[in-house]
Amino acid sequence: MITGKNYIGNRLSAKGEITYKTFNPQLNTENDIPFMEATPGEIEEAITLATAAATEFGALTGNRKAEFLNAIADGILALGDKLIKTYCSETGLPEGRAMGERGRTIGQLRAFAKLVEEGSWVEASIDTAIPDRTPIPKPDLRKMLIPLGPVVVFGASNFPLAYSTAGGDTAAAFAAGCPVIVKSHPMHAGTGELVASAIVNAAKQTNMPIGVFSNLNSSGIEVGTALVQHPGVKAVGFTGSIGGGRALFNLAAQREEPIPVFAEMGSVNPVVLLPEAVLKRGEALAKTYAGSITLGTGQFCTNPGLLLGIKSGELTAFIKKLSDEIIKIEPSCMLHPNIIGAYESKKEKALSQSGITVKAELEKSVQVNYARQTVTTVEGNTFLQNKTLHQEIFGPYSIVVQCEDVNQLEEIIKNLEGQLTGTLIAEEQELTANPNIVSALQNRVGRLIYNGVPTGVEVCPSMQHGGPYPASTDSRFTAVGVHSIKRWVRPISYQDWPNDQLPDELKNENPLGILRLVNNEQTKSAL
Amino acid sequence: MITGKNYIGNRLSAKGEITYKTFNPQLNTENDIPFMEATPGEIEEAITLATAAATEFGALTGNRKAEFLNAIADGILALGDKLIKTYCSETGLPEGRAMGERGRTIGQLRAFAKLVEEGSWVEASIDTAIPDRTPIPKPDLRKMLIPLGPVVVFGASNFPLAYSTAGGDTAAAFAAGCPVIVKSHPMHAGTGELVASAIVNAAKQTNMPIGVFSNLNSSGIEVGTALVQHPGVKAVGFTGSIGGGRALFNLAAQREEPIPVFAEMGSVNPVVLLPEAVLKRGEALAKTYAGSITLGTGQFCTNPGLLLGIKSGELTAFIKKLSDEIIKIEPSCMLHPNIIGAYESKKEKALSQSGITVKAELEKSVQVNYARQTVTTVEGNTFLQNKTLHQEIFGPYSIVVQCEDVNQLEEIIKNLEGQLTGTLIAEEQELTANPNIVSALQNRVGRLIYNGVPTGVEVCPSMQHGGPYPASTDSRFTAVGVHSIKRWVRPISYQDWPNDQLPDELKNENPLGILRLVNNEQTKSAL
Repeated sequence: MITGKNYIGNRLSAKGEITYKTFNPQLNTENDIPFMEATPGEIEEAITLATAAATEFGALTGNRKAEFLNAIADGILALGDKLIKTYCSETGLPEGRAMGERGRTIGQLRAFAKLVEEGSWVEASIDTAIPDRTPIPKPDLRKMLIPLGPVVVFGASNFPLAYSTAGGDTAAAFAAGCPVIVKSHPMHAGTGELVASAIVNAAKQTNMPIGVFSNLNSSGIEVGTALVQHPGVKAVGFTGSIGGGRALFNLAAQREEPIPVFAEMGSVNPVVLLPEAVLKRGEALAKTYAGSITLGTGQFCTNPGLLLGIKSGELTAFIKKLSDEIIKIEPSCMLHPNIIGAYESKKEKALSQSGITVKAELEKSVQVNYARQTVTTVEGNTFLQNKTLHQEIFGPYSIVVQCEDVNQLEEIIKNLEGQLTGTLIAEEQELTANPNIVSALQNRVGRLIYNGVPTGVEVCPSMQHGGPYPASTDSRFTAVGVHSIKRWVRPISYQDWPNDQLPDELKNENPLGILRLVNNEQTKSAL
Repeated sequence: MITGKNYIGNRLSAKGEITYKTFNPQLNTENDIPFMEATPGEIEEAITLATAAATEFGALTGNRKAEFLNAIADGILALGDKLIKTYCSETGLPEGRAMGERGRTIGQLRAFAKLVEEGSWVEASIDTAIPDRTPIPKPDLRKMLIPLGPVVVFGASNFPLAYSTAGGDTAAAFAAGCPVIVKSHPMHAGTGELVASAIVNAAKQTNMPIGVFSNLNSSGIEVGTALVQHPGVKAVGFTGSIGGGRALFNLAAQREEPIPVFAEMGSVNPVVLLPEAVLKRGEALAKTYAGSITLGTGQFCTNPGLLLGIKSGELTAFIKKLSDEIIKIEPSCMLHPNIIGAYESKKEKALSQSGITVKAELEKSVQVNYARQTVTTVEGNTFLQNKTLHQEIFGPYSIVVQCEDVNQLEEIIKNLEGQLTGTLIAEEQELTANPNIVSALQNRVGRLIYNGVPTGVEVCPSMQHGGPYPASTDSRFTAVGVHSIKRWVRPISYQDWPNDQLPDELKNENPLGILRLVNNEQTKSAL
């Protein structure tokens, strides 16, 4: 049952007066349940509990944390159809997407469970003493990663499961040993509460310290602001708009003790189309890209919002085909009236810029809250001079830039903001022949894709999801894959510490059998 | 020869009008050579060159970067006595220290050379494709670390060699493949220019791209401010005061594109003295700590400025002995009149706080610019309530807090700011008996030391030098040891990229023979 209350540790709480409801964009009506916004007192309580839980939780073995993570995954599955139905009623997304995202969420939780069970992720490093070294003895030094402390995770509008309550940020923080306070996303507060109940049950069932998790409702910015400014909070995870992410980054940077904010934000995900590839595969590419641009109603951070080609008859044919194909695709529902409102107004602004030609736009009479997919074109010079055209339009929209030549193409790439992804559509000899294009693109992105589409973010260790600002606030970390655990940990060294007082990861006998750097050699051997 | 000019890439340049001189604190006079402050035009030129050099330098093989790093080390050695004499004349430090620091600097450069020659530091990770996976095929993904781009390094007043021009930050950035622009420290501009000449010669000799290095003089904040605000700069390294580091952090966070600032700042390095250890080893400890507090005239970021004990006859005896011993030590010269000025005024402020008792203070008639070592005591309650007493006093000063009991000791540790180090002086059974003390200390520091002194920072992979704010601006990184390279790099993924177009680190055949994570297994094998 969804109560509309907050979880403060393991307890439901509703001390506030402010309520709000979620919205069903398919039916264009509010859902029934009122959600109670967290009060300053409830925020304080959640942080106090998290702070108290941090030491015990941070010192748990990998196996204990894995139990917790796996129990959360089991609990989410056990929510069954109720979760799927709530998800769909709060997002307008189809059941298939809900089930796919649930699968991904569970997969992420289990991947982190496996990571911490195995244990080598702590990057244990040992340099043994040299007591007779001159002029001074060398001490024994041992280093490993430990948790930062309580982490605040903001739910993401477009990933109610995989990047919200028990999503990638939360799973990574739990795996690291950090208590988590979720600032629930108001658009899918019911989905959030159901998942929160699974986390709370898992915490009880596996005997986690109370306060390892809280879930706070809020429809405005007050709760999030209070959380990020609180001295008890040690790091922040966010997925969403540049405006939102930057605001949190600024709050965190202005604290007496600044804390890391990992915000994964906007991206137009440039796709570079080189001439030979367009000539040989233009038709097929147009069809593929019509699908990628409209996938999930364009509500992915990796949506290809910018196609860069070089003027030619083939590019013209490609644009024509892309326009024809995209119009054929059935329109679909966006997450919320606010989202479609922003899509329509940003698109309108882009379309009103001088030099923009609309090549395809679905007619006005689509169902309410359904997005009208759109393709436009512009000349390279115009694009270079107008930064408005560089901005993300969250939804099924893409602009094709017709560059004069390869030099202008390179200049445009160099002038782009940081991006999550960059795609190169090219024949292999074109890749070899254009090292400057490749290196310019590499310089601007977190992930380079060859002859593919940027949508579809594989969850695996080799995935980098993040990139130069504003793709993310710190390009040195990823938001997807098990290496995202590194956002929430810091190294600590032990100098001349007695062996039996060391964490197991650093003991001579290597009781966990993990891979360690011992006197500069990677080994699983005991000392 | 020291010219007083800036290095803009490989070229000496002095377009400005503002000059300043360094100071010999032993002789209490200015040194002869005027240094020419860099102009806005020179700053712009240095950044333009660094930006142009970034792509070529960033793509060099590990072997080529190692040549450069080793050539710098050779060049610094070849500066011979001239370097040592200049160092001493600009710092008042003895020759032995200058030679020791030179050895450390060279050792760091060679350690980074070895790291990049071997190559596994890029954390290469490969997940191979599963084309027949359902519902969607798995792409081939490969990830490795690449350089961020031009890095600005600020010279440190207290480490003219090891943490300045060719110090740890610079060596790590070069190893990462980032061009470096040094903002030379005004107090040792001559030492800086000599080392800069060695870097420039090494760059020429090993055919590095012009702009891989520049050295800019400045005595005020203008040059540093302009550098940190410039869009061409991608990261900043700093070692120094909290005020200075925080100012740079703020500038970087306020940029349109925020950039990482790794600032290693202040610390009082708490030393916890447990009763049994004081009882058994109080006399020896007092002698050891008198030495550690006065080492290098207390001008180390790891200087033990805070001793925490529990009231007892033995602690009183320890304080008496520490006071007696510290007075016996010959006073020594501080780096600059400004440094001794700050030491005296901060100490005076501390001594004027209510509840402070001076236990030892060298009499006033020491030589000019020589510091008067001082030991004070205070009650636990008074210390808890007065944050002024928690602040670093850079120099040979330490305060002993006499706690009521172990609970108050724990409370005090929990109320400390973040620290580079925390030391526990204890018998082994005391360590076992006080898990709360250990965990409270662990929570506040980057390095835990058992029965030792915090001064002396071993350069090795297992060293963590950095800690919770304000010890550093980002506790997730270290400033010392080869892992400090991680400050200047970011991961990039290649998806379905053709094998022969991949960097060597990610090619199927593993031509570099590096350790890679291949489908979740660490291996040096080819695919």
